[in-house]
Amino acid sequence: MKTLIDRILKDGKCYEGGILKVDKFINHQLDPNLMKQIAVELIRRYASTEINKIITVEASGIAPAIMMGFLLDLPVVFAKKKKPSTMADMLSSTVFSFTKQREYHVCISKEYLTPEDKVLFVDDFLAYGNAAKGIMDLCKQAGAELVGMGFIIEKAFQNGREAIEAAGIRCESLAIIDSLDNCEIKIRQ
Amino acid sequence: MKTLIDRILKDGKCYEGGILKVDKFINHQLDPNLMKQIAVELIRRYASTEINKIITVEASGIAPAIMMGFLLDLPVVFAKKKKPSTMADMLSSTVFSFTKQREYHVCISKEYLTPEDKVLFVDDFLAYGNAAKGIMDLCKQAGAELVGMGFIIEKAFQNGREAIEAAGIRCESLAIIDSLDNCEIKIRQ
Repeated sequence: MKTLIDRILKDGKCYEGGILKVDKFINHQLDPNLMKQIAVELIRRYASTEINKIITVEASGIAPAIMMGFLLDLPVVFAKKKKPSTMADMLSSTVFSFTKQREYHVCISKEYLTPEDKVLFVDDFLAYGNAAKGIMDLCKQAGAELVGMGFIIEKAFQNGREAIEAAGIRCESLAIIDSLDNCEIKIRQ
Repeated sequence: MKTLIDRILKDGKCYEGGILKVDKFINHQLDPNLMKQIAVELIRRYASTEINKIITVEASGIAPAIMMGFLLDLPVVFAKKKKPSTMADMLSSTVFSFTKQREYHVCISKEYLTPEDKVLFVDDFLAYGNAAKGIMDLCKQAGAELVGMGFIIEKAFQNGREAIEAAGIRCESLAIIDSLDNCEIKIRQ
């Protein structure tokens, strides 16, 4: 997706340890029009797939997910990273964050993830794929069908795609970063 | 806002201690079309106010904020509740959450909140107003002008509005709950 790639090259910042900071337009300050374009491109890629629910994880996945849900007129569910005090009947899976070097949980109420659901998972980053594995686990627990995953940015050198495709799940990323070595952003064209 | 009030009466659940759960359509599962209608109503109420940035707090404020930002073509910034490792120059304020009985921080990078900003703050709930006070503090630190606040649901009996209006800031809520006593939802008509 050219608009996105150009924007990453213009406004993305690279840090030691394979960190790409895009907080000018994706995960702190948000560019709503870019989010709409991202949603449209994901809709185009999944045009021939039956979807009846968009799932994401708080917080940076919510903007692209709600845009997709709005354009497709589908409900959106965001997995919570902490179990809320008022959520009784919930599904939970443990996720290890490499970036933050700690475990967290992804939780979805059983009410909002069921065997009737054909789920598209949307998130801002695909890195090691641990959040994606957590969502795969939640869908399995719920008996929901996970029909695909869509990411704004994939850090291909962290190999998250492998586990997703090994499970037979389609994976689409709108910008694929091949390397952040020497703090230089190399995007696949 | 009638659609919203009807939806709260239909799908909202009341718990002991003044807790209103709206996780079927606002803060776990999201109804994107309702979010768009909420954004339109807030835009209507602030029609004569000059705004150049929408601010919210992760996570449940992001959906209405991005819809407003999209419709108004304005940037959206969501305050983070934890200081990210890659955010160097940031403004921070301490917030006490009554619901969770603990302190957290609201953080915004200095890059994205500046003296040029005319800010509308948008969030899902106005309860005791502590998050709102945190945002007022951040805007003051940044020298930004806080032109108003917009909430989806106000729990009027928790008096959050007082501190906002005492500071001379306009406050709009789309559904005002007068009482949740005896687990009965009483909404102002």
